[in-house]
Amino acid sequence: MKVIGSKLTFHTQGPKGGFDTLNITREVQDQVRASGLADGTVTLLVTHTTAGIAIIEDERGHKLDQASFWERLMPANDGYQHNHIAGDDNGHSHLRAGLQGQSLVVPFNAGKLALGTYQAIFLFEFDAPRERTIAVQVMGI
Amino acid sequence: MKVIGSKLTFHTQGPKGGFDTLNITREVQDQVRASGLADGTVTLLVTHTTAGIAIIEDERGHKLDQASFWERLMPANDGYQHNHIAGDDNGHSHLRAGLQGQSLVVPFNAGKLALGTYQAIFLFEFDAPRERTIAVQVMGI
Amino acid sequence: MKVIGSKLTFHTQGPKGGFDTLNITREVQDQVRASGLADGTVTLLVTHTTAGIAIIEDERGHKLDQASFWERLMPANDGYQHNHIAGDDNGHSHLRAGLQGQSLVVPFNAGKLALGTYQAIFLFEFDAPRERTIAVQVMGI
Repeated sequence: MKVIGSKLTFHTQGPKGGFDTLNITREVQDQVRASGLADGTVTLLVTHTTAGIAIIEDERGHKLDQASFWERLMPANDGYQHNHIAGDDNGHSHLRAGLQGQSLVVPFNAGKLALGTYQAIFLFEFDAPRERTIAVQVMGI
Repeated sequence: MKVIGSKLTFHTQGPKGGFDTLNITREVQDQVRASGLADGTVTLLVTHTTAGIAIIEDERGHKLDQASFWERLMPANDGYQHNHIAGDDNGHSHLRAGLQGQSLVVPFNAGKLALGTYQAIFLFEFDAPRERTIAVQVMGI
Repeated sequence: MKVIGSKLTFHTQGPKGGFDTLNITREVQDQVRASGLADGTVTLLVTHTTAGIAIIEDERGHKLDQASFWERLMPANDGYQHNHIAGDDNGHSHLRAGLQGQSLVVPFNAGKLALGTYQAIFLFEFDAPRERTIAVQVMGI
Protein backbone atom coordinates (compact mmCIF):
# COMPACT_ATOMS: atom_id res chain seq x y z
CA MET A 1 0.00 0.00 0.00
CA LYS A 2 1.18 3.48 -0.81
CA VAL A 3 0.05 6.89 0.41
CA ILE A 4 0.94 9.80 -1.82
CA GLY A 5 0.13 13.34 -0.70
CA SER A 6 0.19 16.43 -2.89
CA LYS A 7 -1.44 19.83 -3.23
CA LEU A 8 -3.42 21.47 -6.01
CA THR A 9 -3.84 25.23 -6.33
CA PHE A 10 -6.57 27.08 -8.19
CA HIS A 11 -7.54 30.69 -8.76
CA THR A 12 -11.21 31.53 -8.59
CA GLN A 13 -12.93 34.52 -10.10
CA GLY A 14 -15.95 36.71 -9.65
CA PRO A 15 -17.15 39.76 -7.71
CA LYS A 16 -15.80 40.11 -4.15
CA GLY A 17 -17.60 37.66 -1.85
CA GLY A 18 -19.31 36.03 -4.82
CA PHE A 19 -19.80 32.50 -6.05
CA ASP A 20 -17.69 30.63 -8.60
CA THR A 21 -17.40 27.00 -9.75
CA LEU A 22 -14.30 25.25 -11.13
CA ASN A 23 -14.23 21.82 -12.73
CA ILE A 24 -11.14 20.15 -11.23
CA THR A 25 -11.77 16.58 -12.43
CA ARG A 26 -8.81 16.50 -14.80
CA GLU A 27 -6.37 17.74 -12.18
CA VAL A 28 -7.58 15.13 -9.69
CA GLN A 29 -7.40 12.34 -12.30
CA ASP A 30 -3.85 13.49 -13.12
CA GLN A 31 -2.82 13.08 -9.47
CA VAL A 32 -4.20 9.54 -9.44
CA ARG A 33 -2.35 8.66 -12.67
CA ALA A 34 0.87 10.22 -11.37
CA SER A 35 0.69 8.03 -8.26
CA GLY A 36 1.07 4.93 -10.42
CA LEU A 37 -1.49 3.17 -8.20
CA ALA A 38 -4.19 0.95 -9.69
CA ASP A 39 -6.89 0.68 -7.03
CA GLY A 40 -7.73 2.83 -4.04
CA THR A 41 -9.23 6.15 -3.05
CA VAL A 42 -8.31 9.78 -3.49
CA THR A 43 -9.23 12.04 -0.59
CA LEU A 44 -9.61 15.74 -1.37
CA LEU A 45 -9.66 18.43 1.30
CA VAL A 46 -10.27 22.05 0.36
CA THR A 47 -8.18 23.71 3.08
CA HIS A 48 -10.39 26.78 3.56
CA THR A 49 -13.53 27.73 5.50
CA THR A 50 -15.18 29.75 2.72
CA ALA A 51 -14.95 27.25 -0.15
CA GLY A 52 -16.36 23.78 -0.70
CA ILE A 53 -16.33 20.74 -2.93
CA ALA A 54 -19.08 18.97 -4.87
CA ILE A 55 -19.85 16.49 -7.60
CA ILE A 56 -22.15 17.98 -10.24
CA GLU A 57 -22.67 17.91 -13.99
CA ASP A 58 -20.59 20.48 -15.86
CA GLU A 59 -23.57 22.19 -17.48
CA ARG A 60 -23.97 25.95 -17.79
CA GLY A 61 -27.62 26.07 -16.70
CA HIS A 62 -26.98 24.03 -13.59
CA LYS A 63 -24.05 26.20 -12.60
CA LEU A 64 -26.35 29.25 -12.84
CA ASP A 65 -28.88 27.39 -10.67
CA GLN A 66 -26.19 26.77 -8.07
CA ALA A 67 -25.41 30.51 -7.93
CA SER A 68 -29.10 31.38 -7.55
CA PHE A 69 -29.66 28.72 -4.93
CA TRP A 70 -26.86 29.85 -2.62
CA GLU A 71 -27.90 33.48 -2.92
CA ARG A 72 -31.46 32.50 -2.02
CA LEU A 73 -30.50 30.20 0.89
CA MET A 74 -27.79 32.37 2.47
CA PRO A 75 -27.84 35.82 0.88
CA ALA A 76 -24.67 37.86 0.59
CA ASN A 77 -25.58 40.69 2.96
CA ASP A 78 -24.43 42.12 6.27
CA GLY A 79 -26.97 40.31 8.45
CA TYR A 80 -24.51 37.82 9.91
CA GLN A 81 -23.01 37.76 13.40
CA HIS A 82 -19.69 36.76 11.86
CA ASN A 83 -19.58 40.16 10.17
CA HIS A 84 -20.49 42.07 13.34
CA ILE A 85 -18.44 40.12 15.88
CA ALA A 86 -15.38 39.23 13.80
CA GLY A 87 -15.53 42.51 11.85
CA ASP A 88 -15.57 40.56 8.61
CA ASP A 89 -17.71 40.73 5.45
CA ASN A 90 -18.14 37.10 4.48
CA GLY A 91 -20.53 35.55 6.99
CA HIS A 92 -22.57 34.11 4.10
CA SER A 93 -19.43 32.48 2.65
CA HIS A 94 -18.69 30.67 5.93
CA LEU A 95 -22.26 29.40 6.24
CA ARG A 96 -22.35 28.15 2.64
CA ALA A 97 -19.02 26.37 3.02
CA GLY A 98 -20.03 24.73 6.30
CA LEU A 99 -23.06 23.18 4.66
CA GLN A 100 -21.51 22.14 1.33
CA GLY A 101 -18.44 20.56 2.94
CA GLN A 102 -14.72 20.53 2.10
CA SER A 103 -13.86 16.81 2.09
CA LEU A 104 -14.58 14.37 -0.74
CA VAL A 105 -13.44 10.78 -1.28
CA VAL A 106 -13.55 9.21 -4.74
CA PRO A 107 -12.60 5.57 -5.46
CA PHE A 108 -10.44 4.66 -8.43
CA ASN A 109 -9.95 1.36 -10.25
CA ALA A 110 -7.29 0.52 -12.83
CA GLY A 111 -6.01 4.07 -12.33
CA LYS A 112 -9.32 5.68 -13.32
CA LEU A 113 -11.69 7.64 -11.08
CA ALA A 114 -14.94 5.69 -10.59
CA LEU A 115 -17.05 8.72 -11.54
CA GLY A 116 -20.24 8.31 -13.57
CA THR A 117 -20.54 9.59 -17.14
CA TYR A 118 -21.92 13.01 -16.19
CA GLN A 119 -20.11 13.46 -12.89
CA ALA A 120 -17.43 16.10 -12.48
CA ILE A 121 -15.58 17.19 -9.34
CA PHE A 122 -16.03 20.89 -8.66
CA LEU A 123 -14.41 23.40 -6.39
CA PHE A 124 -17.16 25.69 -5.07
CA GLU A 125 -15.88 29.19 -4.35
CA PHE A 126 -18.06 31.06 -1.84
CA ASP A 127 -15.83 34.13 -1.36
CA ALA A 128 -14.39 35.06 -4.76
CA PRO A 129 -11.84 35.89 -5.97
CA ARG A 130 -9.23 33.81 -4.15
CA GLU A 131 -6.31 31.42 -4.47
CA ARG A 132 -7.45 28.03 -3.15
CA THR A 133 -5.46 24.97 -2.13
CA ILE A 134 -6.69 21.39 -2.10
CA ALA A 135 -4.82 18.70 -0.14
CA VAL A 136 -4.82 15.47 -2.16
CA GLN A 137 -4.16 12.07 -0.60
CA VAL A 138 -3.98 9.09 -2.96
CA MET A 139 -4.07 5.75 -1.12
CA GLY A 140 -4.08 2.27 -2.61
CA ILE A 141 -2.20 -0.55 -4.22
CA MET B 1 -3.77 -4.24 2.70
CA LYS B 2 -6.39 -5.12 0.16
CA VAL B 3 -8.59 -2.98 -2.05
CA ILE B 4 -11.72 -4.64 -3.37
CA GLY B 5 -13.96 -2.78 -5.79
CA SER B 6 -17.49 -3.74 -6.77
CA LYS B 7 -20.76 -2.22 -7.92
CA LEU B 8 -24.26 -2.27 -6.49
CA THR B 9 -27.36 -1.57 -8.56
CA PHE B 10 -30.76 -0.42 -7.30
CA HIS B 11 -34.08 0.49 -8.84
CA THR B 12 -35.88 3.48 -7.41
CA GLN B 13 -39.57 4.25 -7.66
CA GLY B 14 -41.98 7.16 -7.64
CA PRO B 15 -43.49 9.78 -9.93
CA LYS B 16 -41.21 11.10 -12.68
CA GLY B 17 -38.69 13.55 -11.23
CA GLY B 18 -39.79 12.68 -7.70
CA PHE B 19 -38.05 11.73 -4.49
CA ASP B 20 -37.44 8.21 -3.17
CA THR B 21 -35.35 6.68 -0.38
CA LEU B 22 -33.78 3.21 -0.29
CA ASN B 23 -32.15 1.61 2.74
CA ILE B 24 -28.99 -0.02 1.33
CA THR B 25 -27.26 -0.86 4.63
CA ARG B 26 -27.56 -4.62 4.23
CA GLU B 27 -26.11 -4.58 0.72
CA VAL B 28 -23.15 -2.46 1.88
CA GLN B 29 -22.55 -4.70 4.90
CA ASP B 30 -22.65 -7.73 2.57
CA GLN B 31 -19.88 -6.22 0.43
CA VAL B 32 -17.72 -5.70 3.51
CA ARG B 33 -18.30 -9.30 4.67
CA ALA B 34 -17.59 -10.64 1.18
CA SER B 35 -14.22 -8.85 1.16
CA GLY B 36 -13.06 -10.99 4.06
CA LEU B 37 -11.37 -7.92 5.55
CA ALA B 38 -11.54 -7.19 9.28
CA ASP B 39 -10.73 -3.49 9.64
CA GLY B 40 -10.88 -0.61 7.21
CA THR B 41 -13.25 1.67 5.37
CA VAL B 42 -15.88 1.25 2.69
CA THR B 43 -16.18 4.15 0.27
CA LEU B 44 -19.49 4.50 -1.56
CA LEU B 45 -19.93 6.67 -4.64
CA VAL B 46 -23.37 7.08 -6.22
CA THR B 47 -22.29 7.51 -9.85
CA HIS B 48 -25.03 9.95 -10.86
CA THR B 49 -25.70 13.70 -10.67
CA THR B 50 -29.38 13.46 -9.68
CA ALA B 51 -29.11 11.05 -6.73
CA GLY B 52 -27.37 11.22 -3.38
CA ILE B 53 -26.41 9.30 -0.28
CA ALA B 54 -27.18 9.84 3.40
CA ILE B 55 -27.20 8.30 6.84
CA ILE B 56 -30.63 8.55 8.47
CA GLU B 57 -32.94 6.52 10.68
CA ASP B 58 -35.19 4.15 8.75
CA GLU B 59 -38.43 5.61 10.11
CA ARG B 60 -41.53 6.29 8.02
CA GLY B 61 -42.24 9.73 9.44
CA HIS B 62 -38.69 10.96 8.88
CA LYS B 63 -38.72 9.72 5.30
CA LEU B 64 -41.90 11.75 4.71
CA ASP B 65 -40.14 14.76 6.28
CA GLN B 66 -37.24 14.31 3.86
CA ALA B 67 -39.65 14.39 0.89
CA SER B 68 -41.35 17.55 2.21
CA PHE B 69 -38.06 19.26 2.96
CA TRP B 70 -36.58 18.79 -0.51
CA GLU B 71 -39.79 19.95 -2.16
CA ARG B 72 -39.79 23.06 0.04
CA LEU B 73 -36.07 23.84 -0.44
CA MET B 74 -35.80 23.16 -4.18
CA PRO B 75 -39.31 22.72 -5.62
CA ALA B 76 -39.86 20.45 -8.61
CA ASN B 77 -40.90 23.09 -11.12
CA ASP B 78 -39.64 24.57 -14.36
CA GLY B 79 -37.92 27.60 -12.84
CA TYR B 80 -34.38 26.32 -13.32
CA GLN B 81 -31.80 27.42 -15.87
CA HIS B 82 -30.79 23.79 -16.32
CA ASN B 83 -34.25 23.13 -17.76
CA HIS B 84 -34.12 26.15 -20.08
CA ILE B 85 -30.50 25.96 -21.24
CA ALA B 86 -30.02 22.18 -21.35
CA GLY B 87 -33.61 21.54 -22.45
CA ASP B 88 -34.07 19.18 -19.51
CA ASP B 89 -36.76 18.79 -16.84
CA ASN B 90 -34.79 17.93 -13.72
CA GLY B 91 -33.02 21.11 -12.60
CA HIS B 92 -34.34 20.56 -9.07
CA SER B 93 -32.90 17.01 -9.04
CA HIS B 94 -29.41 18.29 -9.91
CA LEU B 95 -29.53 20.98 -7.22
CA ARG B 96 -30.72 18.55 -4.54
CA ALA B 97 -28.03 16.01 -5.45
CA GLY B 98 -25.27 18.64 -5.44
CA LEU B 99 -26.12 19.60 -1.88
CA GLN B 100 -26.75 16.14 -0.42
CA GLY B 101 -23.59 14.63 -1.91
CA GLN B 102 -22.76 11.30 -3.56
CA SER B 103 -19.74 10.08 -1.61
CA LEU B 104 -19.84 8.42 1.82
CA VAL B 105 -17.10 6.67 3.80
CA VAL B 106 -18.00 4.29 6.62
CA PRO B 107 -15.40 2.57 8.85
CA PHE B 108 -15.70 -1.11 9.73
CA ASN B 109 -14.14 -3.16 12.53
CA ALA B 110 -14.10 -6.95 12.88
CA GLY B 111 -15.99 -7.02 9.58
CA LYS B 112 -18.89 -4.94 10.86
CA LEU B 113 -19.87 -1.42 9.79
CA ALA B 114 -19.27 1.03 12.66
CA LEU B 115 -22.79 2.47 12.33
CA GLY B 116 -24.76 3.49 15.41
CA THR B 117 -27.88 1.61 16.52
CA TYR B 118 -30.33 3.78 14.57
CA GLN B 119 -28.12 4.61 11.60
CA ALA B 120 -28.90 3.28 8.16
CA ILE B 121 -27.25 4.07 4.83
CA PHE B 122 -29.74 5.41 2.32
CA LEU B 123 -29.71 6.05 -1.39
CA PHE B 124 -31.58 9.31 -2.00
CA GLU B 125 -33.30 9.37 -5.38
CA PHE B 126 -33.96 12.89 -6.63
CA ASP B 127 -35.19 11.99 -10.15
CA ALA B 128 -37.36 8.88 -9.88
CA PRO B 129 -37.79 6.30 -11.25
CA ARG B 130 -34.30 5.17 -12.25
CA GLU B 131 -31.71 2.44 -12.15
CA ARG B 132 -28.84 3.62 -9.95
CA THR B 133 -25.30 2.32 -9.59
CA ILE B 134 -23.06 2.70 -6.55
CA ALA B 135 -19.31 2.14 -6.82
CA VAL B 136 -18.09 0.34 -3.69
CA GLN B 137 -14.44 0.34 -2.59
CA VAL B 138 -13.56 -1.80 0.45
CA MET B 139 -10.05 -1.01 1.77
CA GLY B 140 -8.39 -2.52 4.79
CA ILE B 141 -6.56 -5.39 6.42
CA MET C 1 -0.35 -0.33 6.27
CA LYS C 2 -2.10 -0.14 9.61
CA VAL C 3 -5.74 0.42 10.52
CA ILE C 4 -6.36 1.68 14.05
CA GLY C 5 -9.92 2.08 15.27
CA SER C 6 -11.00 3.95 18.39
CA LYS C 7 -13.92 5.90 19.80
CA LEU C 8 -14.26 9.43 21.10
CA THR C 9 -17.05 10.53 23.43
CA PHE C 10 -18.35 14.07 23.95
CA HIS C 11 -21.07 15.71 26.00
CA THR C 12 -23.06 18.43 24.33
CA GLN C 13 -25.05 21.17 26.02
CA GLY C 14 -28.01 23.44 25.45
CA PRO C 15 -31.80 23.51 25.75
CA LYS C 16 -33.57 20.22 24.97
CA GLY C 17 -33.66 19.65 21.21
CA GLY C 18 -31.36 22.60 20.64
CA PHE C 19 -28.18 23.22 18.68
CA ASP C 20 -24.62 23.07 19.97
CA THR C 21 -21.16 23.06 18.40
CA LEU C 22 -18.00 21.41 19.75
CA ASN C 23 -14.50 21.88 18.38
CA ILE C 24 -13.02 18.36 18.37
CA THR C 25 -9.89 19.07 16.31
CA ARG C 26 -7.46 18.46 19.17
CA GLU C 27 -9.02 15.10 20.07
CA VAL C 28 -8.89 13.96 16.42
CA GLN C 29 -5.28 15.11 16.05
CA ASP C 30 -4.43 13.22 19.27
CA GLN C 31 -5.83 9.99 17.78
CA VAL C 32 -3.67 10.45 14.70
CA ARG C 33 -0.55 11.08 16.81
CA ALA C 34 -1.33 8.10 19.05
CA SER C 35 -1.50 5.84 15.97
CA GLY C 36 2.16 6.49 15.28
CA LEU C 37 1.35 6.65 11.55
CA ALA C 38 2.93 9.28 9.31
CA ASP C 39 0.69 9.47 6.24
CA GLY C 40 -2.89 8.46 5.63
CA THR C 41 -6.47 9.41 6.39
CA VAL C 42 -8.61 9.59 9.48
CA THR C 43 -12.26 8.71 8.94
CA LEU C 44 -14.73 10.06 11.49
CA LEU C 45 -18.27 8.75 11.85
CA VAL C 46 -20.67 10.38 14.30
CA THR C 47 -22.72 7.29 15.23
CA HIS C 48 -26.07 9.08 15.68
CA THR C 49 -28.96 10.28 13.48
CA THR C 50 -29.47 13.64 15.23
CA ALA C 51 -25.90 14.95 15.19
CA GLY C 52 -23.48 15.84 12.41
CA ILE C 53 -19.93 16.82 11.58
CA ALA C 54 -18.46 19.85 9.83
CA ILE C 55 -15.34 21.83 9.14
CA ILE C 56 -15.77 25.49 10.09
CA GLU C 57 -13.79 28.33 11.62
CA ASP C 58 -13.94 28.42 15.42
CA GLU C 59 -15.33 31.95 15.59
CA ARG C 60 -18.13 33.03 17.95
CA GLY C 61 -20.09 35.01 15.36
CA HIS C 62 -20.09 32.18 12.85
CA LYS C 63 -21.26 29.71 15.47
CA LEU C 64 -24.21 32.03 16.21
CA ASP C 65 -24.90 32.19 12.45
CA GLN C 66 -24.98 28.39 12.32
CA ALA C 67 -27.59 28.29 15.11
CA SER C 68 -29.74 30.90 13.33
CA PHE C 69 -29.42 29.18 9.99
CA TRP C 70 -30.59 25.76 11.18
CA GLU C 71 -33.51 27.29 13.07
CA ARG C 72 -34.51 29.18 9.92
CA LEU C 73 -34.08 26.21 7.54
CA MET C 74 -35.66 23.50 9.70
CA PRO C 75 -37.38 25.12 12.70
CA ALA C 76 -37.64 23.27 16.00
CA ASN C 77 -41.40 22.83 16.11
CA ASP C 78 -43.94 20.04 16.06
CA GLY C 79 -44.70 20.17 12.33
CA TYR C 80 -42.80 17.02 11.40
CA GLN C 81 -44.20 13.61 10.50
CA HIS C 82 -41.42 12.02 12.55
CA ASN C 83 -42.98 13.57 15.65
CA HIS C 84 -46.51 12.45 14.76
CA ILE C 85 -45.78 8.96 13.44
CA ALA C 86 -42.88 7.96 15.68
CA GLY C 87 -44.29 9.84 18.69
CA ASP C 88 -41.02 11.72 19.03
CA ASP C 89 -40.12 15.39 19.46
CA ASN C 90 -36.99 15.80 17.36
CA GLY C 91 -38.07 15.67 13.72
CA HIS C 92 -36.07 18.85 13.05
CA SER C 93 -32.95 17.24 14.55
CA HIS C 94 -33.18 14.26 12.18
CA LEU C 95 -33.64 16.49 9.12
CA ARG C 96 -30.71 18.73 10.06
CA ALA C 97 -28.44 15.75 10.68
CA GLY C 98 -29.40 14.08 7.39
CA LEU C 99 -28.35 17.16 5.45
CA GLN C 100 -25.16 18.04 7.35
CA GLY C 101 -23.82 14.48 7.31
CA GLN C 102 -22.04 12.28 9.87
CA SER C 103 -18.96 11.08 7.98
CA LEU C 104 -15.79 13.10 7.41
CA VAL C 105 -12.40 12.06 6.03
CA VAL C 106 -9.30 14.18 6.69
CA PRO C 107 -5.84 13.40 5.26
CA PHE C 108 -2.72 13.62 7.43
CA ASN C 109 0.94 13.94 6.50
CA ALA C 110 3.95 13.55 8.81
CA GLY C 111 1.44 12.84 11.57
CA LYS C 112 -0.36 16.17 11.17
CA LEU C 113 -3.92 16.75 9.93
CA ALA C 114 -3.84 18.52 6.55
CA LEU C 115 -6.32 21.17 7.74
CA GLY C 116 -5.97 24.79 6.64
CA THR C 117 -5.03 27.54 9.10
CA TYR C 118 -8.60 28.47 10.02
CA GLN C 119 -10.18 25.03 9.69
CA ALA C 120 -11.46 23.19 12.74
CA ILE C 121 -13.41 19.93 12.95
CA PHE C 122 -16.72 20.40 14.72
CA LEU C 123 -19.32 18.08 16.14
CA PHE C 124 -22.73 19.58 15.36
CA GLU C 125 -25.32 18.71 18.00
CA PHE C 126 -28.88 18.95 16.66
CA ASP C 127 -30.67 17.47 19.70
CA ALA C 128 -28.96 18.79 22.84
CA PRO C 129 -28.01 17.85 25.47
CA ARG C 130 -26.56 14.40 24.75
CA GLU C 131 -23.59 12.09 25.04
CA ARG C 132 -22.18 11.54 21.54
CA THR C 133 -19.79 8.92 20.22
CA ILE C 134 -17.55 9.25 17.17
CA ALA C 135 -15.98 6.18 15.57
CA VAL C 136 -12.42 7.01 14.49
CA GLN C 137 -10.51 4.99 11.92
CA VAL C 138 -6.89 5.95 11.30
CA MET C 139 -5.45 4.28 8.17
CA GLY C 140 -2.01 4.74 6.70
CA ILE C 141 1.67 3.99 6.76
